[in-house]
Amino acid sequence: VSEAPRQMSHMTWPEVRAAVERGAGVILPLGSTEQHGLHLPLACDAICAADLALAVAEQTDCVVAPPIVYGYRSRPMSGGGQGFVGTTSISGQTLILTVRDVVAEFLRHGFRRIVLLNWHNENSNFMYEGAHLALEGRPGDEAKILVIESPFERLSDATMEELFAGDFPGWATEHAAIMETSVMLHLHPDLVHFDRAVDDRVARATPYEVLPVQPEFVTESGSLWKATRASAEKGERAWKEIVGPLVEAVLTELPVQAGA
Amino acid sequence: VSEAPRQMSHMTWPEVRAAVERGAGVILPLGSTEQHGLHLPLACDAICAADLALAVAEQTDCVVAPPIVYGYRSRPMSGGGQGFVGTTSISGQTLILTVRDVVAEFLRHGFRRIVLLNWHNENSNFMYEGAHLALEGRPGDEAKILVIESPFERLSDATMEELFAGDFPGWATEHAAIMETSVMLHLHPDLVHFDRAVDDRVARATPYEVLPVQPEFVTESGSLWKATRASAEKGERAWKEIVGPLVEAVLTELPVQAGA
Amino acid sequence: VSEAPRQMSHMTWPEVRAAVERGAGVILPLGSTEQHGLHLPLACDAICAADLALAVAEQTDCVVAPPIVYGYRSRPMSGGGQGFVGTTSISGQTLILTVRDVVAEFLRHGFRRIVLLNWHNENSNFMYEGAHLALEGRPGDEAKILVIESPFERLSDATMEELFAGDFPGWATEHAAIMETSVMLHLHPDLVHFDRAVDDRVARATPYEVLPVQPEFVTESGSLWKATRASAEKGERAWKEIVGPLVEAVLTELPVQAGA
Amino acid sequence: VSEAPRQMSHMTWPEVRAAVERGAGVILPLGSTEQHGLHLPLACDAICAADLALAVAEQTDCVVAPPIVYGYRSRPMSGGGQGFVGTTSISGQTLILTVRDVVAEFLRHGFRRIVLLNWHNENSNFMYEGAHLALEGRPGDEAKILVIESPFERLSDATMEELFAGDFPGWATEHAAIMETSVMLHLHPDLVHFDRAVDDRVARATPYEVLPVQPEFVTESGSLWKATRASAEKGERAWKEIVGPLVEAVLTELPVQAGA
Amino acid sequence: VSEAPRQMSHMTWPEVRAAVERGAGVILPLGSTEQHGLHLPLACDAICAADLALAVAEQTDCVVAPPIVYGYRSRPMSGGGQGFVGTTSISGQTLILTVRDVVAEFLRHGFRRIVLLNWHNENSNFMYEGAHLALEGRPGDEAKILVIESPFERLSDATMEELFAGDFPGWATEHAAIMETSVMLHLHPDLVHFDRAVDDRVARATPYEVLPVQPEFVTESGSLWKATRASAEKGERAWKEIVGPLVEAVLTELPVQAGA
Amino acid sequence: VSEAPRQMSHMTWPEVRAAVERGAGVILPLGSTEQHGLHLPLACDAICAADLALAVAEQTDCVVAPPIVYGYRSRPMSGGGQGFVGTTSISGQTLILTVRDVVAEFLRHGFRRIVLLNWHNENSNFMYEGAHLALEGRPGDEAKILVIESPFERLSDATMEELFAGDFPGWATEHAAIMETSVMLHLHPDLVHFDRAVDDRVARATPYEVLPVQPEFVTESGSLWKATRASAEKGERAWKEIVGPLVEAVLTELPVQAGA
Repeated sequence: VSEAPRQMSHMTWPEVRAAVERGAGVILPLGSTEQHGLHLPLACDAICAADLALAVAEQTDCVVAPPIVYGYRSRPMSGGGQGFVGTTSISGQTLILTVRDVVAEFLRHGFRRIVLLNWHNENSNFMYEGAHLALEGRPGDEAKILVIESPFERLSDATMEELFAGDFPGWATEHAAIMETSVMLHLHPDLVHFDRAVDDRVARATPYEVLPVQPEFVTESGSLWKATRASAEKGERAWKEIVGPLVEAVLTELPVQAGA
Repeated sequence: VSEAPRQMSHMTWPEVRAAVERGAGVILPLGSTEQHGLHLPLACDAICAADLALAVAEQTDCVVAPPIVYGYRSRPMSGGGQGFVGTTSISGQTLILTVRDVVAEFLRHGFRRIVLLNWHNENSNFMYEGAHLALEGRPGDEAKILVIESPFERLSDATMEELFAGDFPGWATEHAAIMETSVMLHLHPDLVHFDRAVDDRVARATPYEVLPVQPEFVTESGSLWKATRASAEKGERAWKEIVGPLVEAVLTELPVQAGA
Repeated sequence: VSEAPRQMSHMTWPEVRAAVERGAGVILPLGSTEQHGLHLPLACDAICAADLALAVAEQTDCVVAPPIVYGYRSRPMSGGGQGFVGTTSISGQTLILTVRDVVAEFLRHGFRRIVLLNWHNENSNFMYEGAHLALEGRPGDEAKILVIESPFERLSDATMEELFAGDFPGWATEHAAIMETSVMLHLHPDLVHFDRAVDDRVARATPYEVLPVQPEFVTESGSLWKATRASAEKGERAWKEIVGPLVEAVLTELPVQAGA
Repeated sequence: VSEAPRQMSHMTWPEVRAAVERGAGVILPLGSTEQHGLHLPLACDAICAADLALAVAEQTDCVVAPPIVYGYRSRPMSGGGQGFVGTTSISGQTLILTVRDVVAEFLRHGFRRIVLLNWHNENSNFMYEGAHLALEGRPGDEAKILVIESPFERLSDATMEELFAGDFPGWATEHAAIMETSVMLHLHPDLVHFDRAVDDRVARATPYEVLPVQPEFVTESGSLWKATRASAEKGERAWKEIVGPLVEAVLTELPVQAGA
Repeated sequence: VSEAPRQMSHMTWPEVRAAVERGAGVILPLGSTEQHGLHLPLACDAICAADLALAVAEQTDCVVAPPIVYGYRSRPMSGGGQGFVGTTSISGQTLILTVRDVVAEFLRHGFRRIVLLNWHNENSNFMYEGAHLALEGRPGDEAKILVIESPFERLSDATMEELFAGDFPGWATEHAAIMETSVMLHLHPDLVHFDRAVDDRVARATPYEVLPVQPEFVTESGSLWKATRASAEKGERAWKEIVGPLVEAVLTELPVQAGA
Repeated sequence: VSEAPRQMSHMTWPEVRAAVERGAGVILPLGSTEQHGLHLPLACDAICAADLALAVAEQTDCVVAPPIVYGYRSRPMSGGGQGFVGTTSISGQTLILTVRDVVAEFLRHGFRRIVLLNWHNENSNFMYEGAHLALEGRPGDEAKILVIESPFERLSDATMEELFAGDFPGWATEHAAIMETSVMLHLHPDLVHFDRAVDDRVARATPYEVLPVQPEFVTESGSLWKATRASAEKGERAWKEIVGPLVEAVLTELPVQAGA
């Protein structure tokens, strides 16, 4: 099984059928197409979600479905907001329906271990609702859906200290900043223009939002925090601590069946 | 102005028109009809949202619109989930459209200071999307919408210590427990069956969710934490620290106009 | 049973469960937030619907769900139309979905005696469709839904004469006028500014409508008829004749189960 | 103008353009495909609506758009309900969107005199909402839409007496009965199987409805009243009194422009 | 059976019930209200679809449901596009929902042989989706739906030569031109202003489309090809070759039951 | 410009802004996740669409947006139908909304040269509707959208002969067969299991479809035609003739601005 193909997009249909039959699960990565500062690519969230899904899949006998690459509208406080050129978002209803349709197909395929794995804060709740709708009217279905909206909340204190040196602004604010830049330097250094990275912060950080988006809640660069403090080493360390608990979560909630 | 009527439901239309003309704002409270343990009423969220709106309105020259009393589906980790009898929820799309329609009406009325004030964690994002949709296609409109999804995140360290004694489980988990029970004991002791309150906790607390809802993520009582530790004194203290920053937020983002 | 709690918003979830288990029904009041002349509050319809639901519930062993307080768009001929500041309405689709979702929850709770009780003419048909959609795909469900769109059509001739003295303009036109003002004077005199009440009528009354709303179909005050002729006595008399037939309707269509 | 083509379905596009340019209006008939007893065709409502539209169009310089032939779900109290084979209905949302789309096209064509003319009670409110939505966001448009949901409410007392002989059950109940049968005998005797007509009535007539539909609210024949009392003479008399006020309504609300 | 009534609009409900009981099928014609050049009526597609349905129905024991007369938006390359006055179209979602609702009613009636018969190229896919949605959640239903989106693709080489003389531009382009005009001259010469017919063609024909519609992709007349070359004889010949294969298709896919 | 970055997913937001400012266009590839026989990956359509977009973009100064990888439901006659495990589709409404939202974002970015480039037959019409909706209400916008639903219809006769040797079954049927396999062998030989390729065909090929999908319309392998006849050489030749006309189409309809 460990050498089974993992990327559904590259598999043939008999390969997917074989996966279903041996009890494999399926992971749907959710990301975005959203500005990530002066130095990271728009697909940062989608890339991280897809890579994370693959890393988890290999240790939990899952296949990875093609990622959702357009996410819900960017918010100023967690992604810079909808004012940036390049940020390309979909509405709440569109995201709900997309997840509903795709998960309903997984159920039709016969998958009974389904994971929604998100790396774009704004997708929360909409993706949950999509999963809920897909299950409605199938009370007898034995499938379980693991909904992971925030995948990087279990870093150890030591790692948090190494990354943020006591200056952690909260995950929402940590957009295109230390953690994401570090992870991208670790996974895809070729996609990072680290020389362009800047430290930034919104003029006012608030636990609420104002619509239409006001300039003082948006940074000029798009990074919301100190991107220059990132490093590949920090990325590697964080990545390991992100992957580990998720593997454990999948194995706990959606155990691999004996003999698989 | 300080004696102006505040409850839109009890105002006549000329009174609302007068409020608009003098530059008053409008606050829409969002709650839920959701189980709140053995001792709190289903309307707990709606009541807190409405009372909070009124408290803020009086200090910021706003009127309070009738609350949204049916909220998005309860989640196991923040409200016990959709398994309880009594919990009466609406879908994501229904909530989005409701907020869109109501806010569009506020804009038609001429309100330019609009606040969405939520006391039900699960309404987040859906209510934001509703506000976003209401503004679409009105690029020249001068109205501002303040979207407050989490109103109680700014308690002082001292108050947090008094409430939780070092044992704070996170706001999501603090459902029908110390803070909400205390606030209700402070505001509406007649609606609290404090003798029925119990301490409870889910068998497993996770930073993700599983659908369909699994029994081990749900408590028997519906409280997710230690309700018996609540008191009216704690409620009064918390309430004051909840109201204060919100008043400040409204005055900062939606300043009362001179002469109003 | 007669002392059982009735207001679902003030009940705990075990209390709702107990109600379901003893065979109690549930009544959903539907109202509006709509101008009601110079003298009545915007919530007039919601208040009347909720009070009526409670009066009926007590005699039919039902609980009263939180009312729908935002109703379908006001029409000139029955509510003054959408031109008034303060009138805050939702679209047809939003109302349909709201009723669908809430009724589906009642079915999940196990309620088998469900009443939709409306006091806002414009909600008709949309609320019926919502109930229809909630039942779709549950062919075996034994629940019955009683849909009451027009609750005050069975007044006796004597009462009609006392109220209108031979000058009855039809129920649609009787908006914020004799009957509603009288009922509010009877139920909530503190919410009525009777000194501001005026007699009014549209310049032209027609059995059709024109969009966009034309000024000659709208009164200046918002009352569509002779509000000054109202009195608490008339209200009490009308109220009794409104409640009575509805109690009978519920007992006939959704009989209280033996032993309840 | 009096010899101008009237049926849009039979006109060429330059003929429609000419109609728009001379200031002609457009009438959209709305009907249903619904059981009409043992003796009338399913299209009864659609035929009456279309014929009525044509009769009005000729005296008001309008063209008649193709009728909406599938209407909202039949109700027991006004059409026998959704239990009959043959009754073919659409949902509320589908009807709303259909009317919205079609009226939006009329506005694009340049029509400024638009009439929605309904002969199926259950279409009410949904058709109004469709018209409302079509106008949204066109505040400067000079078009007027005349919404006629109940076209036969202005018969003279003498005609009412001739038709019902003092035994009028209300228009909703008068389904596939005296008036409709008479009108069809007058307009399309070839489509009426008058020998099959029966008198019927529901076991219980109520001012509310019960879902799912209960047998005692439905007649066996599908007629809700005394179809055998119909005659072509009654039909001719009623028809004249139906057409007349509608012509007057169109001329009053949507006056024909000078020189047209 | 051969003399059984066929037009559902003219049938009574017991006649439809009898048709269902003997195993008859139902055909839903889909057309449009769309410009068809200077010489053909807007309802050309709806008329052809309805006539074709009737011709097929008579040889396959089906009844013909009232046609869908408003179709999806006209495209420049196959219908002249949405710029013409008179073309009256509905959105994709409206068409999907209409077909879904109507087919769901056929299933409720008990029809097990259902045909969707289209004569408006732009309805494709939307009508298929409507049928798909109607079947969802009825896995055990034995009904079959035959979806015919392009009914005239099986003309013999000889007939193609007679119609087009080697100059066939493709069916999409053949709008309001040789085939449609010929068929209309054969079926409804009274509705054809053949003296107004012109030959036309778009300035540029492309296998793609540009939005907003550009003038060079639209003809001045609305015909997209050589309408003057039409004749009733060509129409009769084409019609026979259109009806034949469709009858065969229905008999093959939805065989008439023995004894019917 | 020729060395400008092309993959929007790998670009930073200032790079996208620079592209917009110099007048670059944007191409949205649309594909599917659909069975492609025993030998091709599920993402075949998405890969071809994305590669094609890149090839065109380089010669027309466009950037390539992240592809739509979930397409409309597979049809038996053009993709094997919805019965295969692995085929993962979305509904018509979901696809419409996705395209609407994404194109609306391109318009917000300032792109005025927009291309929708599809390689999944079933996406047709839905994608067109999405583009139409995005443009609604922006009458003054100068953007043009080029909608390419069928990109491979302009191969030369010589190439058609080389590929099909006189045995061309039509593009719909040519699924996972000669052309697609050849193109994939040319572009991504590592993703093709050519040793597993088989020749196949449906038992009955018809110009219509039957729902639910009947077995005789589906092949066992998923290929609908002769996959073994493919070769990288054929793929290279076809690819060149596919790219060429599309480059020309973009340059013709959306000319690169002088100085860009």
